[in-house]
Amino acid sequence: MKKLWGGRFKGSTNKQCEDYTASIQVDKRLYAYDIAGSLAHATMLARSHIISLRDASKIVAGLKVILKEIETKKFVFEQSDEDIHMAIEKKLIAKIGPVGEKLHTARSRNDQVLLDVRLFLRDETEDIIQRISQLQKILLTVAEKNIKVVMPGYTHMQQAQPILFSHYVLAYYFMLKRDKERFAQCLVRTNVLPLGVGALAGVNYPIKREFTAKLLKFPKVSENSVDTVSDRDFIIEFLAASSVLIMHLSRLAEELVLWSSSEFEFVELADAFCTGSSIMPQKKNPDVAELIRGKSGKIYGNLMALLTLLKGLPLSYNRDLQEDKEPLFATVDTVKDTLSITGELVKSMKVQAKNMAHKMAKGLMEATDIADYLVLKGLPFRQSHFIVGSLVKYCLERQKDFHALKLTEYRRFSPKFSQDIFPFIKIENCLNRKKSTGGTAPQKVLASIKKEQKDF
Amino acid sequence: MKKLWGGRFKGSTNKQCEDYTASIQVDKRLYAYDIAGSLAHATMLARSHIISLRDASKIVAGLKVILKEIETKKFVFEQSDEDIHMAIEKKLIAKIGPVGEKLHTARSRNDQVLLDVRLFLRDETEDIIQRISQLQKILLTVAEKNIKVVMPGYTHMQQAQPILFSHYVLAYYFMLKRDKERFAQCLVRTNVLPLGVGALAGVNYPIKREFTAKLLKFPKVSENSVDTVSDRDFIIEFLAASSVLIMHLSRLAEELVLWSSSEFEFVELADAFCTGSSIMPQKKNPDVAELIRGKSGKIYGNLMALLTLLKGLPLSYNRDLQEDKEPLFATVDTVKDTLSITGELVKSMKVQAKNMAHKMAKGLMEATDIADYLVLKGLPFRQSHFIVGSLVKYCLERQKDFHALKLTEYRRFSPKFSQDIFPFIKIENCLNRKKSTGGTAPQKVLASIKKEQKDF
Amino acid sequence: MKKLWGGRFKGSTNKQCEDYTASIQVDKRLYAYDIAGSLAHATMLARSHIISLRDASKIVAGLKVILKEIETKKFVFEQSDEDIHMAIEKKLIAKIGPVGEKLHTARSRNDQVLLDVRLFLRDETEDIIQRISQLQKILLTVAEKNIKVVMPGYTHMQQAQPILFSHYVLAYYFMLKRDKERFAQCLVRTNVLPLGVGALAGVNYPIKREFTAKLLKFPKVSENSVDTVSDRDFIIEFLAASSVLIMHLSRLAEELVLWSSSEFEFVELADAFCTGSSIMPQKKNPDVAELIRGKSGKIYGNLMALLTLLKGLPLSYNRDLQEDKEPLFATVDTVKDTLSITGELVKSMKVQAKNMAHKMAKGLMEATDIADYLVLKGLPFRQSHFIVGSLVKYCLERQKDFHALKLTEYRRFSPKFSQDIFPFIKIENCLNRKKSTGGTAPQKVLASIKKEQKDF
Amino acid sequence: MKKLWGGRFKGSTNKQCEDYTASIQVDKRLYAYDIAGSLAHATMLARSHIISLRDASKIVAGLKVILKEIETKKFVFEQSDEDIHMAIEKKLIAKIGPVGEKLHTARSRNDQVLLDVRLFLRDETEDIIQRISQLQKILLTVAEKNIKVVMPGYTHMQQAQPILFSHYVLAYYFMLKRDKERFAQCLVRTNVLPLGVGALAGVNYPIKREFTAKLLKFPKVSENSVDTVSDRDFIIEFLAASSVLIMHLSRLAEELVLWSSSEFEFVELADAFCTGSSIMPQKKNPDVAELIRGKSGKIYGNLMALLTLLKGLPLSYNRDLQEDKEPLFATVDTVKDTLSITGELVKSMKVQAKNMAHKMAKGLMEATDIADYLVLKGLPFRQSHFIVGSLVKYCLERQKDFHALKLTEYRRFSPKFSQDIFPFIKIENCLNRKKSTGGTAPQKVLASIKKEQKDF
Repeated sequence: MKKLWGGRFKGSTNKQCEDYTASIQVDKRLYAYDIAGSLAHATMLARSHIISLRDASKIVAGLKVILKEIETKKFVFEQSDEDIHMAIEKKLIAKIGPVGEKLHTARSRNDQVLLDVRLFLRDETEDIIQRISQLQKILLTVAEKNIKVVMPGYTHMQQAQPILFSHYVLAYYFMLKRDKERFAQCLVRTNVLPLGVGALAGVNYPIKREFTAKLLKFPKVSENSVDTVSDRDFIIEFLAASSVLIMHLSRLAEELVLWSSSEFEFVELADAFCTGSSIMPQKKNPDVAELIRGKSGKIYGNLMALLTLLKGLPLSYNRDLQEDKEPLFATVDTVKDTLSITGELVKSMKVQAKNMAHKMAKGLMEATDIADYLVLKGLPFRQSHFIVGSLVKYCLERQKDFHALKLTEYRRFSPKFSQDIFPFIKIENCLNRKKSTGGTAPQKVLASIKKEQKDF
Repeated sequence: MKKLWGGRFKGSTNKQCEDYTASIQVDKRLYAYDIAGSLAHATMLARSHIISLRDASKIVAGLKVILKEIETKKFVFEQSDEDIHMAIEKKLIAKIGPVGEKLHTARSRNDQVLLDVRLFLRDETEDIIQRISQLQKILLTVAEKNIKVVMPGYTHMQQAQPILFSHYVLAYYFMLKRDKERFAQCLVRTNVLPLGVGALAGVNYPIKREFTAKLLKFPKVSENSVDTVSDRDFIIEFLAASSVLIMHLSRLAEELVLWSSSEFEFVELADAFCTGSSIMPQKKNPDVAELIRGKSGKIYGNLMALLTLLKGLPLSYNRDLQEDKEPLFATVDTVKDTLSITGELVKSMKVQAKNMAHKMAKGLMEATDIADYLVLKGLPFRQSHFIVGSLVKYCLERQKDFHALKLTEYRRFSPKFSQDIFPFIKIENCLNRKKSTGGTAPQKVLASIKKEQKDF
Repeated sequence: MKKLWGGRFKGSTNKQCEDYTASIQVDKRLYAYDIAGSLAHATMLARSHIISLRDASKIVAGLKVILKEIETKKFVFEQSDEDIHMAIEKKLIAKIGPVGEKLHTARSRNDQVLLDVRLFLRDETEDIIQRISQLQKILLTVAEKNIKVVMPGYTHMQQAQPILFSHYVLAYYFMLKRDKERFAQCLVRTNVLPLGVGALAGVNYPIKREFTAKLLKFPKVSENSVDTVSDRDFIIEFLAASSVLIMHLSRLAEELVLWSSSEFEFVELADAFCTGSSIMPQKKNPDVAELIRGKSGKIYGNLMALLTLLKGLPLSYNRDLQEDKEPLFATVDTVKDTLSITGELVKSMKVQAKNMAHKMAKGLMEATDIADYLVLKGLPFRQSHFIVGSLVKYCLERQKDFHALKLTEYRRFSPKFSQDIFPFIKIENCLNRKKSTGGTAPQKVLASIKKEQKDF
Repeated sequence: MKKLWGGRFKGSTNKQCEDYTASIQVDKRLYAYDIAGSLAHATMLARSHIISLRDASKIVAGLKVILKEIETKKFVFEQSDEDIHMAIEKKLIAKIGPVGEKLHTARSRNDQVLLDVRLFLRDETEDIIQRISQLQKILLTVAEKNIKVVMPGYTHMQQAQPILFSHYVLAYYFMLKRDKERFAQCLVRTNVLPLGVGALAGVNYPIKREFTAKLLKFPKVSENSVDTVSDRDFIIEFLAASSVLIMHLSRLAEELVLWSSSEFEFVELADAFCTGSSIMPQKKNPDVAELIRGKSGKIYGNLMALLTLLKGLPLSYNRDLQEDKEPLFATVDTVKDTLSITGELVKSMKVQAKNMAHKMAKGLMEATDIADYLVLKGLPFRQSHFIVGSLVKYCLERQKDFHALKLTEYRRFSPKFSQDIFPFIKIENCLNRKKSTGGTAPQKVLASIKKEQKDF
């Protein structure tokens, strides 16, 4: 079949070539944005007296019919349509005749596809920001609800110091806060009108790009035509922001997997978010958390795909750029689904405060507090650290914890110890002392929750 | 709906969780391999007296009916089926009753899915190897046909030395030869029976894995059950081999794009493999070559996805591993399509020998030969290199080439020059001299073509 | 040798382990920031009455001596020092005695190393932003100087439409503008005080983090201790911004390589920025441009390294995080050097306006203008596109360009053509018409240059 | 200073350019290989009568002196030397005069650098294969020594079925076996002589490449000159093999980190391979394991760097390729160090058999065996799986394990249960039954150890 661009060609397109180059199965997803863009373009063309108002009305009417046909699945996409732009333009011409052939005046697919993608990504980024907020709210709720739960804090996967479970949950809250910032800043760079730069050089018509921008709610118009059609920065930046986000979620997922193991038992995931084994009847597996963790591979891979695509590519449009859509779409879908289900998973899990307390017993996690105790009694920190190190060795050899030692035993290591060491190393006192900004003292954590809740 | 593994669960699975964890839309593609594996498994169970021959027959018959139903699109896959294994097992039970419940004896989905993937990848790798051979044959034909075409050879994208176009084409041939080797070696590691290791520990039945292997034509049985269910090496290795292959093709594609530009005009691509512009009527674009180049992003990304997935994952099966299939399938499809279309593109292009000759004129590419001429006359190479460098500067300032210089001019730079310099720097002599192994001398290139043609 | 943390250990550290875990050879680069941080920390400790003013003075004096010793290369770093923090603390204690053992009060290496890295990256990011500005200024100058140069614009590496060379150069200017924005926004997230959160939970002392922040000029204090020690987002974000930047530069480098080939000859690179061949005396290679292009590999790899590192890592500090420094340092150095040399390369190149004009002749690049001419005469664009396509075919068959056609020939394709077609397709008119925002019309390009120059 | 290739240049090289393009600080590491290659080349040139025997002797003697000077640190490398090839050639000429200027006859840096890298990588790959073997031996020893230790096997990080600890250790052994295979196959493709193809086209002299190959112990000579200088496949393949290897080690490291936590306590790492905390005196951190896990980032990044580098690069030598060495060298060093220290870490760890047994108690891991018990009693597997699922639910509600149930309780779920269920679910019986190939039955595991030990 003759292509809309086929004037200068002798041979017709090879079928295998048509299949290899067609993007219609992927980019048909953009139909609503393609039509919205064409509606604005036609309106602007009329406003700029490039086509008549009457022609514009016909085009607008035709496009609206096509929109409805697609939404009601009456529209049949064919491989030979190449892409969503050609599919809709061809149908428009079939529907309204030669007037339809005027729609592509003063534009190129090079700027048109960018318009579609920018409109799409603007919507999706806003949606993602909403979903991050949603997840943040869930985390704040979980933090507030469990404000009295104490858990062992870890460094190097070794018990380090007791912390509030809520404080831990807030760590994820603050990560997400940065994620939101990044998406919001990326959105500003996405939210720029590309239409009107033509193939690469600008167009031969007195178009009003600022008017199109207004119609489509773009606060800004792109400033250089060559840059505009070459630029996929906003997609890479979106993928980079998504990579950091999914990395955060992979860390949370890893912890949920560990915490729901029988060795930790810090949380119990809801049955509704676990699955069983085809062979082992006792299994209840944290599949959702594992999949969240695993999704990082896909998103990282997509980022790498786009960076590779653009590497060393001469400017202006090259067909390679068509390959930007699959990784973008897959990332958008994965990020949205993963944000939602992470919220559900966290919301429905049961926090096992007793188990946390129980596991903490043998950690000797008060060691830092004892070192600080000796500092308060006048020792330099490095000395007190060494003394408490020896005390730890003593405890390990006797399988005792600090609370089980007698004062005489303490004093074998330093005469600075006195009776007040015992209240000093009570967990609640250890926590309460950590009250400078960012510390795990309950009063600070609660204040942090309250402060952040105001943001929503 | 109740899951086949649902005995120990109270709550039913959340719908969002079901969607997030279901792989059926992706792995249904494996149905033929899943059924082939189950047929072999049932046969082995009977042979090992774990189920009766009669039961096995019923199962076999049921599976064959299901196979037909899928192939004739009568089979409806549902999201709640989770995956292809469950979908088929459930259908089997529905079809033949409780006997169907015996099929999953002595196996787990953990080993079953690996069987499916290994069977799939075995077939696809063989197909890919065939396609590489096909492309290699086309390259040999193009090389043979154009054995007299001389082109400028480049280093640093600067004209360096004249070479045979066929010699250049053979460079790609030899790259593909290594690719084939890598796929073949990866295939050996893919071609190992995983079935029979159960979930992770082996199974409680006296199964005969070697018999299953024979039925399914696996030359080897996996040696350690924990390793077997944890291992995705063969997929990563396949993706790595694919990455090198697509890198090779991206280099060829880059050259085709350059060569078909109006600045080079070394080849003319067939109309059937080019497309036009929606706005610029004169354009004939090498879209296929550009897309081949761009596909590197996808394949590299998929490799990175799998490496990320496996990083730091504790052994035995984790649900993260489900994420291996999308990148694998996408890579298989892309590699196959790209190999085929590259062949068509190369086969249908027109080599512009005259343009190559024309562009070569001003390259001063005989400089190395002149330096070697002086070496033959007794100068150390480094001195002769310097002398010819000065000669080059002289030519550039006068915009002359070596053939236009007079002997007196040559002799200003060295008294070693005599009349024989002129035949010495004739292109055919430059080429003919390069006859040690791997050199571009026509006799060697032709011999290389002949030798390689025997491999097919 | 006894470690400062060695109290609880029986065995001493294995030498191989010491080598494997030591980061001193890498992180000694941070010495100035480590000391600056310790100076502020000691001052704050005194201000908060945690140590005496006298002790603080001794510590401050000791640290300053150490700083001088390092800067004058008198300081010997040893593998057994582990890292820069321990090396300096140990030396301090050796120098000023037990008072030095008080410095590590109320801090941990977990927050200390982040302080060092954040101080380092703050400085380096500011430097990079300066260098981007510098390169932008060079581009503006080149654009201004060559405002009359017309070049063929390309899509798909095929000549597409004539554009101003300056317009093309500005495309890179605007890419860099976005890069600068990204680095600046990343800098805000880098510029946050981590010190004072201790190992992960906060500290047992009434420290004033806001005071430390003021001393070190941090506008913000981190809000959650667990997040603080776990967070490497700012590094990943820096690497992502660097990846986009280097991608931009790789595209420019690719064009410089192509443009300096004998097939294009659009620019001539300065001898001072090219190198020769060890064997081919005539070669002048654009090595710098090639290396710029190649540096993309390193930066992308470093981004992937960090993303991999963080994937699935449970919160709070894990030793894996030590691996963040090598990729960060290498990226900083590469980005800085590459920005500078790109500027020098561009500044010193010679623009070959005549060659550009010459190459343009055969491109039939006025086709789009002719199509638009017919639109102005009343044809719908799609029809006019088809007509001009046929005209192109006619020209190709006769090896003519549009300027060589007679009016009668034009009119064979459409009666709409009249004499005014000839001035219409003059290059300067083609350019002048493209004057909506972002177009290549000289007046717009010049205005853009003027506007942007005001930003510096 | 004048470059050896500087004849045709007017300006001298810019200092910044010199620094940016110099690779001497990186590739000086190749000096021994560069000299070995030059020794062979000079010998071959004499043998082929291209230079005299006397000249060759002088060159050989000069090179040997230089080798000694480098090894005794008398040789000063300067930035202006560009690379190791030029540094040595320049020194040779300085030492032995014009005869030294003959060494570079019939070769180019393009083939020379590949010779150096291939010689280097051949040695290093052999070393790495040795180190893998060494680690495998340690694993076999650990497996043999702990043949009676039973541990909980996991899927989804949930206790799944009891397995032999030795069996688990062997899983890593078999992964390493595949790694070794991959490195060995990559080595075959590395072990090919590139020297003698000149810059890209072959050389003008009657050289005997096969003789050079023999001198340098290369079993094969490269077959196409263009391919030879363009090819970095063998490096990418090495990096891909390294990526899979480091992925394996990252999984082992992850398990060691988990297993040495107080929640698991499956192993105790030796003090000599752990480090302490600067602030928390009780900490003993598995730093080595964490760093092994983290090294995956670096290796993956290096693989991605090389793939990016080569993407879309036109054939023959481009300066971008110089960027191959840093990632290669860093990978070689990291892989070697990591293999060694992993061995030491594993060898010195203490296996805590009692803790494993203790943790296993509550896992209900015999569920699969009970399901299989019912199958033996005649139930279809899917039914028995469901029954045992209900039994599990019963146990969970009562916090009982299978051994604590009475027969009457069992029979509430199925009348098939009788007294023999109790011996059936004894751990040793569960293990012993899993005796098909790859299963965890002690007799099979021991046989596997014995069989593999014979390979060394």
